[in-house]
Amino acid sequence: MTGNLVIAVDAMGGDQAPAMVVEGIGMARKRFPDARFLVFGDEGEVRPYLDGSPEAAAVTEVRHTPNRVTDDAKPSQALKSGRDTSMFRAIEAVTRGEAQAVVSAGNTGALMGIARFVLKTLPGIERPAIVTYFPTERGESVMLDLGANVECGAKTLVEFAVMGEVFARAVLGLTQPTVGLLNIGAEELKGNEAVKQAANSLRESTLPISFQGFVEGTDIGYGAVDVVVTDGFTGNVALKTVEGTSRLYSNLLKKAFRSSLLARLGYFLSRGAINRLRDRVDPRRYNGAMLVGLNGVVVKSHGGTDPFGFANALGVAIDLVQHRFNHTIKEDFARLSGYGEPEEPEAARA
Amino acid sequence: MTGNLVIAVDAMGGDQAPAMVVEGIGMARKRFPDARFLVFGDEGEVRPYLDGSPEAAAVTEVRHTPNRVTDDAKPSQALKSGRDTSMFRAIEAVTRGEAQAVVSAGNTGALMGIARFVLKTLPGIERPAIVTYFPTERGESVMLDLGANVECGAKTLVEFAVMGEVFARAVLGLTQPTVGLLNIGAEELKGNEAVKQAANSLRESTLPISFQGFVEGTDIGYGAVDVVVTDGFTGNVALKTVEGTSRLYSNLLKKAFRSSLLARLGYFLSRGAINRLRDRVDPRRYNGAMLVGLNGVVVKSHGGTDPFGFANALGVAIDLVQHRFNHTIKEDFARLSGYGEPEEPEAARA
Repeated sequence: MTGNLVIAVDAMGGDQAPAMVVEGIGMARKRFPDARFLVFGDEGEVRPYLDGSPEAAAVTEVRHTPNRVTDDAKPSQALKSGRDTSMFRAIEAVTRGEAQAVVSAGNTGALMGIARFVLKTLPGIERPAIVTYFPTERGESVMLDLGANVECGAKTLVEFAVMGEVFARAVLGLTQPTVGLLNIGAEELKGNEAVKQAANSLRESTLPISFQGFVEGTDIGYGAVDVVVTDGFTGNVALKTVEGTSRLYSNLLKKAFRSSLLARLGYFLSRGAINRLRDRVDPRRYNGAMLVGLNGVVVKSHGGTDPFGFANALGVAIDLVQHRFNHTIKEDFARLSGYGEPEEPEAARA
Repeated sequence: MTGNLVIAVDAMGGDQAPAMVVEGIGMARKRFPDARFLVFGDEGEVRPYLDGSPEAAAVTEVRHTPNRVTDDAKPSQALKSGRDTSMFRAIEAVTRGEAQAVVSAGNTGALMGIARFVLKTLPGIERPAIVTYFPTERGESVMLDLGANVECGAKTLVEFAVMGEVFARAVLGLTQPTVGLLNIGAEELKGNEAVKQAANSLRESTLPISFQGFVEGTDIGYGAVDVVVTDGFTGNVALKTVEGTSRLYSNLLKKAFRSSLLARLGYFLSRGAINRLRDRVDPRRYNGAMLVGLNGVVVKSHGGTDPFGFANALGVAIDLVQHRFNHTIKEDFARLSGYGEPEEPEAARA
């Protein structure tokens, strides 16, 4: 494999794999001509698609792996009997230094389980988290955790804030992203203990983070902050609620435009603007969640995505590599006072 | 006060009170000609609006209360020094049997605190919850808790399921509402212990509830179940995320229609259908959250609502009274095996 930027790809994960994966590589190449792709999958299945797509074939090397992780496999199963699967081998390519990141549209639980086992977590991080970005009124925001950690203490939420902030810099290209802790505002005793303690830690910390305090559910769609920090249960529900509500509006709008001849004509005239709106919130443009907190860049694509969406997930991985995501995370954690390993005092070093 | 159906109203709560309250009563009267309203507030402020609205005046009796609960008052303050406020006196009207329900657009925390103190909770209920309804693709659904209980055990979630189901029957007019527990689906270990135990209890219970198991955030907008049960932290975030995402779409659509002359013309032609869509999801149509689990019907209106929205909250209170909400709840709780006070064995009663 030539070239410095190599992305390992699990060709067998996702509903339309491997066709969607190969076509996605062809699309990603246009945006990232320097990237190379190390593709793990059943060569007999992958090769015909590469033969039909010279643009993808020119930047791809295939490694034959006979097996794949099924969608219903439990993480423990996938770990125990999955060593020769395309997912396992693709992740291993990162530890072996053959690739700088791995992308898979396969089973999320298995990906997390295998990635933790193979790559290990970063020093001081107990459990990795899942982070992604989504459209808001002000542009785009990042949210984490999205389901890896059902219950989170204050320390974990602070770690999420650090990692989410770096993710926003790398993927949204922001120089000083704002960070907020998701909370509720209805009652006198706002939020739980973990959220309150995490807010105190972030206010007092010397981290170069622009912490804005608490945000509420209404602030998510508006984009009040660039990074929304919350536990995996709430984050999973909140992001999926955004997705479900978006679908509700898109379907109601479709129905409205079909409800009369006049409405159809109205749609015909305004379809340019309506299609721009649709593009702006197109879920495929936001495809690509990262498993943060691992010794390696692991990007999860939606299983149901198409080549355009998969190309976007590949782009997220490349952005993270080019922004030296994990390097920055490690630097930031070193600044977190009272975190991780005790540091040598200044005097001793001098 | 004549007539059987009397609603106590806090005339001083809400941004546009008392004008909005009086006008809302006038609007509610058209839908509920038999209802009467016992209005608590500063007579000098309320009277001029009633003089200007004979339709409201004909069904309203004013009780002068010199003070009001401010928006920034803490529940403890409101309880200690709030006895002569319009909110406190309106709630007291329910215990005294002068009214069957109370409606306020004032401070939520104070309303909950005073209502708990004055009305007490229903037997077996530790903490009341907040429940409301919202638009979905399939129609309308109910969600609780929306912020009264930040952390919830399995027993509390089961109580929410019972109360939410009765609320859906009363307010949405459903004969057999479906119920789901909000959960996440990303990882092998789905959800927390409370959610898993509550699901087991609901599956095994002899309650006449149509329990559908777990639902995810995406199911909220679709309306996969009629009643979404969750803890107060997640529910508050989820409902506010729905509101924020709805606002995002409404604003993006407005912008799209203004983006070109052609789009403006398109809007002009399709505005009938677009306005019907807007009506369908109009937040004022969904104004009126209930504080469930109390010995009395307490309905909270959004503070920022207008007369149309306040009339809707009054309608929610009337629906709940007419469906004998608390009576049904008590019956259902009696059927919950292993709940509340230990029952006398059948033999001993005979």
